[in-house]
Amino acid sequence: MPSTNRQLKLAARPRELITPDVLQLTESPIPTLQDGQALARVKYLSIDPTMRIWMADVPQYMPIIQLGEIMRAFGLAEVVESRHPGYKKGDKLSGLTGLQDFVIVDGKDSRSFQKVPNIPFLSDTNFLNILGINGMTAYFGLLEIGKPQSGETLVVSAAAGATGSIVGQIAKIHGCRVIGIAGTDEKCKWIRHDLGFDVAINYNDPDWKAQLYAATPNGVDINFENVGGEIMHAVLNRMNNHGRVVLCGLISGYAKLDPALASFTQIIIKRLRVEGFLVIDYVSRFMEAGQKLGMWKMTGKLKDRQTLVHGLEKAPEAINMLFRGDNIGKLILEP
Amino acid sequence: MPSTNRQLKLAARPRELITPDVLQLTESPIPTLQDGQALARVKYLSIDPTMRIWMADVPQYMPIIQLGEIMRAFGLAEVVESRHPGYKKGDKLSGLTGLQDFVIVDGKDSRSFQKVPNIPFLSDTNFLNILGINGMTAYFGLLEIGKPQSGETLVVSAAAGATGSIVGQIAKIHGCRVIGIAGTDEKCKWIRHDLGFDVAINYNDPDWKAQLYAATPNGVDINFENVGGEIMHAVLNRMNNHGRVVLCGLISGYAKLDPALASFTQIIIKRLRVEGFLVIDYVSRFMEAGQKLGMWKMTGKLKDRQTLVHGLEKAPEAINMLFRGDNIGKLILEP
Repeated sequence: MPSTNRQLKLAARPRELITPDVLQLTESPIPTLQDGQALARVKYLSIDPTMRIWMADVPQYMPIIQLGEIMRAFGLAEVVESRHPGYKKGDKLSGLTGLQDFVIVDGKDSRSFQKVPNIPFLSDTNFLNILGINGMTAYFGLLEIGKPQSGETLVVSAAAGATGSIVGQIAKIHGCRVIGIAGTDEKCKWIRHDLGFDVAINYNDPDWKAQLYAATPNGVDINFENVGGEIMHAVLNRMNNHGRVVLCGLISGYAKLDPALASFTQIIIKRLRVEGFLVIDYVSRFMEAGQKLGMWKMTGKLKDRQTLVHGLEKAPEAINMLFRGDNIGKLILEP
Repeated sequence: MPSTNRQLKLAARPRELITPDVLQLTESPIPTLQDGQALARVKYLSIDPTMRIWMADVPQYMPIIQLGEIMRAFGLAEVVESRHPGYKKGDKLSGLTGLQDFVIVDGKDSRSFQKVPNIPFLSDTNFLNILGINGMTAYFGLLEIGKPQSGETLVVSAAAGATGSIVGQIAKIHGCRVIGIAGTDEKCKWIRHDLGFDVAINYNDPDWKAQLYAATPNGVDINFENVGGEIMHAVLNRMNNHGRVVLCGLISGYAKLDPALASFTQIIIKRLRVEGFLVIDYVSRFMEAGQKLGMWKMTGKLKDRQTLVHGLEKAPEAINMLFRGDNIGKLILEP
């Protein structure tokens, strides 16, 4: 049995990228196992963009990691010694191992750790990838939020990444036209030729926006967004009415202090549903609304007030009043 | 019968606010009515923030107004002369009259114009307000997109505006706790004391964000967003998980060239549904996904690739690789 464990502990909050002071490598003796504990050697660690969010001390979807704690990470570990009835030597576990060589697993951890079965065709690392958090993210994000229909056009950013590469393939399985955006020709070649995406666009090409335009003659129905920023904006400009945007990641903003992305980050962290709304979609139901609104008005439940401006020539000034907040209630012009 | 008609025509595109060169006042003779036409005098014109969008030559939800055309506007008009079998003198019509003194109505306009009935308690201007586009917007935006439940907390911005003031009252009718954000004490007094909002916050108070925090002890379930920018961001920070954001307007951005709001504008114009997504909401269904994903992998429908980094001490560098796009497929660390 090994005697020491290397661990990476969060020593400072990163400002942008991870600088050497952020994670501190420590070595400590492995404590003697107690009854109900097992020791597992971490074989593989999953490196994910969300780790950058975990390092920050902003409100987020999991507990904030305190300075001095082992850095959180998904991993695959193999039991090397066990005093836990549920685990035996050689068992493989996936879960939040943290960035360390060995992890002690006990009953309290059972929620996070899953036993990894031995299945032909599936390697250990597949349980951190296709069958791990990336596969789950691609599967539920695309199918539950994106709701792909055969014949629809999907664009996925960070398309050669762990999640994006799976999203595009699942979309193909569901009959979509799939456009992937990635940052090198090698990545584009992989998703286009090996994974079967219909189009791959290298966002470092000077004409990448024109390529995106040309690749989406019928617009975009689903955007599976992993990147944010300029890439997201270009795709949003190609969306069809009533399209769906699966806001999964904003990696372009994680390592920057970009206030423009802050609101989009809230949408992800809180799993908000933000829906654009134009009243013209409800014209056929105006009568129904008018009856309700008129009744509320007549019974005193709904009150109104207006700011009146006189003279057709005052229209430009009246419009400007709206943007300065000079009106209370409805602004009306009497020509 | 009057002989001349004053009209405001779009003469230039505004850059920010409406400058004097944007709308040009012209006078022209009213043509002799043809059979099937009626002439109506415009009594009231609705002044709405969306007019600023209509003036721009960007893709939008209605046809772009060409330079030289009469500026589009909702209005209420009264028939003064008719050679149309469906309209008689004294009839009141609401619809897209445009910014002018008189409008000629014919069969082709029947789609846009609605006859306004004479109903006790309802004034003519109510048909541009509670029963006009603002009432419809508040009714469908709140009930169809916001889906208010009794006991939930709603925040509405531009709360003393034509739409916001109706949104808050309909939310009260449906049992919500309602917080309105407006820009003057007079507006706040009106929505708080006359309209019955639970809390009114003046965003020009230095401590308005603290007031918002204090007014939402249980967070925010619905944000009916009319403003965008800093106000929207503050409200998004108070949202509860799985909250709904009705993106109705971004008035803070219409008269500015603000790239940060450009993506949110796309969400409105295209009526996109943008949904934040975290895979942890689907933990109970991981088994289902794993079976599908594993099957696709084993049958060759799903391929993967990984970038392996060796050495626990390389973890910080490995995380940075993600943000520089140095990996293809899954990035895995072998400690």
